[in-house]
Amino acid sequence: MASSSSLPDIQATGDSRGIAINQVGVSDLRYPIQVLDRYSQPFTTVAKISMSVHLPHHFKGTHMSRFLEVLSTHEGEVTMRTLPQILRDLKQRLDAEEAHIEVAFTYFINKQAPVSGAAAKVGFDVIFHGISRATCDDFTLSVKVPVTTLCPCSKEISDYGAHNQRGYITLEVRPKAKDGSWEMILIEDLISIAEQSGSAPVYALLKRTDERFVTMQAYNHPVFVEDVVRNAAALLQADARVASFKVSAVNHESIHDHNAFATVIGGDDT
Amino acid sequence: MASSSSLPDIQATGDSRGIAINQVGVSDLRYPIQVLDRYSQPFTTVAKISMSVHLPHHFKGTHMSRFLEVLSTHEGEVTMRTLPQILRDLKQRLDAEEAHIEVAFTYFINKQAPVSGAAAKVGFDVIFHGISRATCDDFTLSVKVPVTTLCPCSKEISDYGAHNQRGYITLEVRPKAKDGSWEMILIEDLISIAEQSGSAPVYALLKRTDERFVTMQAYNHPVFVEDVVRNAAALLQADARVASFKVSAVNHESIHDHNAFATVIGGDDT
Amino acid sequence: MASSSSLPDIQATGDSRGIAINQVGVSDLRYPIQVLDRYSQPFTTVAKISMSVHLPHHFKGTHMSRFLEVLSTHEGEVTMRTLPQILRDLKQRLDAEEAHIEVAFTYFINKQAPVSGAAAKVGFDVIFHGISRATCDDFTLSVKVPVTTLCPCSKEISDYGAHNQRGYITLEVRPKAKDGSWEMILIEDLISIAEQSGSAPVYALLKRTDERFVTMQAYNHPVFVEDVVRNAAALLQADARVASFKVSAVNHESIHDHNAFATVIGGDDT
Amino acid sequence: MASSSSLPDIQATGDSRGIAINQVGVSDLRYPIQVLDRYSQPFTTVAKISMSVHLPHHFKGTHMSRFLEVLSTHEGEVTMRTLPQILRDLKQRLDAEEAHIEVAFTYFINKQAPVSGAAAKVGFDVIFHGISRATCDDFTLSVKVPVTTLCPCSKEISDYGAHNQRGYITLEVRPKAKDGSWEMILIEDLISIAEQSGSAPVYALLKRTDERFVTMQAYNHPVFVEDVVRNAAALLQADARVASFKVSAVNHESIHDHNAFATVIGGDDT
Repeated sequence: MASSSSLPDIQATGDSRGIAINQVGVSDLRYPIQVLDRYSQPFTTVAKISMSVHLPHHFKGTHMSRFLEVLSTHEGEVTMRTLPQILRDLKQRLDAEEAHIEVAFTYFINKQAPVSGAAAKVGFDVIFHGISRATCDDFTLSVKVPVTTLCPCSKEISDYGAHNQRGYITLEVRPKAKDGSWEMILIEDLISIAEQSGSAPVYALLKRTDERFVTMQAYNHPVFVEDVVRNAAALLQADARVASFKVSAVNHESIHDHNAFATVIGGDDT
Repeated sequence: MASSSSLPDIQATGDSRGIAINQVGVSDLRYPIQVLDRYSQPFTTVAKISMSVHLPHHFKGTHMSRFLEVLSTHEGEVTMRTLPQILRDLKQRLDAEEAHIEVAFTYFINKQAPVSGAAAKVGFDVIFHGISRATCDDFTLSVKVPVTTLCPCSKEISDYGAHNQRGYITLEVRPKAKDGSWEMILIEDLISIAEQSGSAPVYALLKRTDERFVTMQAYNHPVFVEDVVRNAAALLQADARVASFKVSAVNHESIHDHNAFATVIGGDDT
Repeated sequence: MASSSSLPDIQATGDSRGIAINQVGVSDLRYPIQVLDRYSQPFTTVAKISMSVHLPHHFKGTHMSRFLEVLSTHEGEVTMRTLPQILRDLKQRLDAEEAHIEVAFTYFINKQAPVSGAAAKVGFDVIFHGISRATCDDFTLSVKVPVTTLCPCSKEISDYGAHNQRGYITLEVRPKAKDGSWEMILIEDLISIAEQSGSAPVYALLKRTDERFVTMQAYNHPVFVEDVVRNAAALLQADARVASFKVSAVNHESIHDHNAFATVIGGDDT
Repeated sequence: MASSSSLPDIQATGDSRGIAINQVGVSDLRYPIQVLDRYSQPFTTVAKISMSVHLPHHFKGTHMSRFLEVLSTHEGEVTMRTLPQILRDLKQRLDAEEAHIEVAFTYFINKQAPVSGAAAKVGFDVIFHGISRATCDDFTLSVKVPVTTLCPCSKEISDYGAHNQRGYITLEVRPKAKDGSWEMILIEDLISIAEQSGSAPVYALLKRTDERFVTMQAYNHPVFVEDVVRNAAALLQADARVASFKVSAVNHESIHDHNAFATVIGGDDT
């Protein structure tokens, strides 16, 4: 039976086209990972992962299996604290000057209804995105938060009622560097900012008293998609831990079959 | 260069496992097709098509390329009037006793706003599904219609406002047989039934006077997802052209990140 | 502040349209659940859940929040052994004669490469589907398994090479009733059947010696999509624990931008 | 009945948060459009469109319905020649200094099989992306092309066979400015570059002689995902009409359930 060492290593041969590759790696890889909740307790979730490296112009190919080997040694914990080590391992194992990782997963919060206090879990799409370059590292945390939005125009021009809908606010935040790592921003911090920026939060479990509460809460706090991104941007601008951010909001308009959206980019990068 | 006749035909060899295959064919095939609008005018749209045949236990395989050959001769017109001929061609060309075709496409209606009359197009997901068996043919028409739904409970228990959201009503209808074909049911007929079953229709283009109108229209016609399917089922039950139907409704609840849904099956088959 | 008891219960009012609703409930609900692995060890994964009940014609609506309440008490364990209890709870809590639950989640297996033994996890889409009716319960287990398939025709007619691709085999199996429950069929049992039915299994991590092995394994075991479903159907027919089944296979053809598919239905129901 | 002029215009009121909005508009709008084929013949297809404008900090909101009004006057033809006019209309109608439009649609080519000459249509995902700023306009054309890729490593290390799979190459190209517009680059030009960069093109309809041809063609032209992006990048670098480009390739690996991908960015921007 062939051993690895006796088989030719095509990837390691040279390439003469003179074209470096910005990113090469694996994507759409599903993997169970452990993340930490706000109390630093680990919980298991399912991630979709992509990992890649920069490939200099003179190498023909990268060694895809090594991405899996690195991941497999780190599945115990994937957080903004361990990402730098994973990136260092990728760079070393793949002999690369630059490595990227993107880890998208569902994060759950046990959320209590606003009046009855009845609890059930709500899931949020979270993405950790890390890059390690020769001279600097980069990290962004992205959280997508469902909210209710109620249209101020519809409320103002109608004798009663107002169209409202589910909207999604995505906060993509780059923390400031601190002590060789980054300022700690909790997923819950971003969820809180997003929920303050819409007309009302959404819940998994609402009893009738709760439904009355959120219906009137939304009617009392109408927001355009423009207001949503400005509200969130103002809160992120005021947050000393945030270096830069991108806020996106999309409303699944209840009176249309298309969406309304808005985006604000802010912070150091702009 | 090899000609087809000189190459072995593996598919045509025998199989001894004794297992007939209910359906074998191609799926997820994108193809431009012509459909007819309500005035019998052709218009071009993009379809996702699957075609399949029954394979008797003694044949090893079917000839996949022949599905494409049949489609390619019929792209000029795909309607509930031409589907029987396509199915007959599939049976003959693939030497099969049973053939299936499913054609999913977007159908557009130029829709006028209710007050201003401003017009823009709204797209609807439509599926033609045809089966030709040895002794009988089958056809269903499915149309998915976006609507606004406003919650009766939220309206009743709140001092003001009511949560509402985009919902989708899917009507899957089997017409009665008539004169060797089927009763003609227009896509527009099903859109109309669905739009009567929600709180208000949705539009692509609404000016402020229209927005005021649909906001109050929805508030005046609150419906649970249960009401939506019952309203549509009652209209389909009363339609003499309909042999059987399945009505599904899903509300993208604005106060939750999950959906509410309901299904009613009715007619001859139940 | 309003208490639930003082608010009108619109859902509990009557309905005079005379139309019973086959299914009404919640869908697309993301929730963390615990399932058991083959060694009965619990592990946490993320599920997409739908739950519904039958609604008699004389009730206006169901109480959606109760689905969440039942789920919230059962999140500790969702397996084919606990599903009957969840369904009983749904029937009781929602005062219904029939309840449905569908739990779709990703199941992971730590898979060793065939030569090097290097290990990494592969994810499989699994669906538990349970129905509890007045007189009988129903349960199906569905597992979707990625495999390599290599085309026998391409191999036979070409001087060298053969087109191959990733395919997905979905086995949907209804176990036989046994002792008031069902015969135990492990997720791993169905994965094994599917992997025997393609040209070669797929892995997350393959070193070069492994890649050589699976390349030649696939070339030595060419299968049409028809062979795939027949192979799996034959194994399920011979399994004394299986009451009925549906086998589907889809090949993401490497020489086309559409797919080839096949379906066999077998067992008691056919 | 209320006329528009008598209803308050909330969007036009002021905002004091001091936050300009980078993009606000509509997205996920399905619309039938006419594009031109390589012979300048119009054909109808279905597009998914997003349109947006920059909103200065002192305006509360934009007027979403005006996006639809502009679109509705331009549905006759959406091409790289008419996009500038649509963008100018958006800027004028929405009183904005910057406008964006993204039009994603399926483009079809009638493709002849390489030996038999049998013809059927293959669909390609195309995106037109235009931005009109105060001082300069921007345009990119993106085409996603399915191909076959065959692994050079698998071929080299195995005694026979080689794993291959469907891959997708996406070329996103910014043409050079020319005479107040841009250099004309045909969709077919990019398809051709992509198809030269993989192991073999894919087709909708292949007879056995064709299948033999493409099987051996792929085996004779093995490419890593790294080779694919380098091949395409080299062709784009040599094209005098191209100002800058991004080449992405993703292989749906037949031996894994995840993908391999690579990206090269090139041209003036880098």
